[in-house]
Amino acid sequence: MSKNKNHTDMILGPNLGDRSLVSTISGQDQKGKISDFTVIEERPLSIFLNSQEIVTAMTIGDYPEYLALGFLRNQNLLKSEDQITRIDYDDDLKAVIVRTENETNYEQKLKRKIRTSGCAVGTVFGDMMESIEEVNLPICEVRTSWLYTLSRQINQIKSLYLEVGAIHGTVLCKEDKALVYMEDVGRHNAVDKIAGWMFHNKSEAVDKILYTTGRLTSEMIVKCANMGVPVLVSRSGFTAWGVELAKTTNMTLIGRLRGNRFTCLSGADRLVYDVDLKEKND
Amino acid sequence: MSKNKNHTDMILGPNLGDRSLVSTISGQDQKGKISDFTVIEERPLSIFLNSQEIVTAMTIGDYPEYLALGFLRNQNLLKSEDQITRIDYDDDLKAVIVRTENETNYEQKLKRKIRTSGCAVGTVFGDMMESIEEVNLPICEVRTSWLYTLSRQINQIKSLYLEVGAIHGTVLCKEDKALVYMEDVGRHNAVDKIAGWMFHNKSEAVDKILYTTGRLTSEMIVKCANMGVPVLVSRSGFTAWGVELAKTTNMTLIGRLRGNRFTCLSGADRLVYDVDLKEKND
Repeated sequence: MSKNKNHTDMILGPNLGDRSLVSTISGQDQKGKISDFTVIEERPLSIFLNSQEIVTAMTIGDYPEYLALGFLRNQNLLKSEDQITRIDYDDDLKAVIVRTENETNYEQKLKRKIRTSGCAVGTVFGDMMESIEEVNLPICEVRTSWLYTLSRQINQIKSLYLEVGAIHGTVLCKEDKALVYMEDVGRHNAVDKIAGWMFHNKSEAVDKILYTTGRLTSEMIVKCANMGVPVLVSRSGFTAWGVELAKTTNMTLIGRLRGNRFTCLSGADRLVYDVDLKEKND
Repeated sequence: MSKNKNHTDMILGPNLGDRSLVSTISGQDQKGKISDFTVIEERPLSIFLNSQEIVTAMTIGDYPEYLALGFLRNQNLLKSEDQITRIDYDDDLKAVIVRTENETNYEQKLKRKIRTSGCAVGTVFGDMMESIEEVNLPICEVRTSWLYTLSRQINQIKSLYLEVGAIHGTVLCKEDKALVYMEDVGRHNAVDKIAGWMFHNKSEAVDKILYTTGRLTSEMIVKCANMGVPVLVSRSGFTAWGVELAKTTNMTLIGRLRGNRFTCLSGADRLVYDVDLKEKND
């Protein structure tokens, strides 16, 4: 649970209290001085859908249930109408099993795909892209004051990133408020955990903004679109295909948000410039 | 080919001349000003080994042959003794096919794995980890002067990263010289391209240093170990499992190299401190 007392709107924050997420390792610095360094953990987690093993993800290890649920949703292997009957996490096996009431369409899909390519990597990729063509996100106003407030706020929230580095964060926001902040070694995992949290809590997507510390690559845009979140914001940069997919799905895509600067490469007509930058240092 | 005339030791450098690797997109900044922004391309590339589709990678698109060759080598799907008869790249299909004289062990492996898990993601992961247990890298001296020279040099080499950002770089080095500099949207692709170049050119690994802009996660250490390169250096941080794998394989692992600072978490006894830091600004 969050230790960030001053961010009272936050529902779930970085897992600072869980010391199993970091390790202390003895090392040597540029002067030859030996001391202890704290580094982030990285562990394999196998995700099963019913009896089918889907993927092994490398993760820091917190919220395995949300990660599994969000991954399966974002890959379109679980539909919104699928009834989850149980989610079991086995700490010894480092495996999480998501069970549904009925057989999902994945079991059939996999059989078919194995005959054609024999490779589930392609299958997973294909499933993800397949779903995005139907996505048409609603038009939502985005105030520039929200962006500046969120950016400042998220940079100040105590996180594993600030403590040990080498990880990414994804934050589910509403207007200028950070609600759920997840971290992981991969930016994809962090966003999958948010998706899992949203699916589990039946959180509405249309009024939300997703903030990520990672780059706006195609996979991030596809995940955000599959989650139904109409605004994706990052402090990092873009890829051309990411921008194309954002335009296709009607997503507002804002990158390079640092200080009072940003670049909007999709949906700029929804921006409301409610901050006078002349009064601020740029 | 490299446009970096002042780095005369460099054999192959960032592909600045190839304008198909970037795209110009109209966007809007924090002041509402509309202008053109240059962003990196991102395209799917399907990698085949003989008749078997192995993976679809997201890549900027240069050196598809090196990427395919390096990926297959680093995943242990191609052995050093496998004879490559042909590599075909099809620009329309965005596919590269690596052909070997004899059937590789992958065809058999895949059949077996499908029966157990049905998922090639796990297979690919398993193959990669399987090979690392046998790796025992040779002990190589690393002078701190090399690290400082490499860091300064690599930061100054003209690159797509300096031009458009949002990509990673991997540089094959020898002592204090950068030899081959590859870039890609994923740090894994950049290192796979280096591996492909090394395999194709029969480049010796034991006297090399690999520099990456990306984090030192388990997958990066496994790839470097499979390549036989005994020293891995990054400007970014570590994960605990990455450090553990570096120790297991006898790799010298240096992270957070910025200015005159660095952290060594494996193989520090091979460092030769030949720079007096008192004479330098820290």
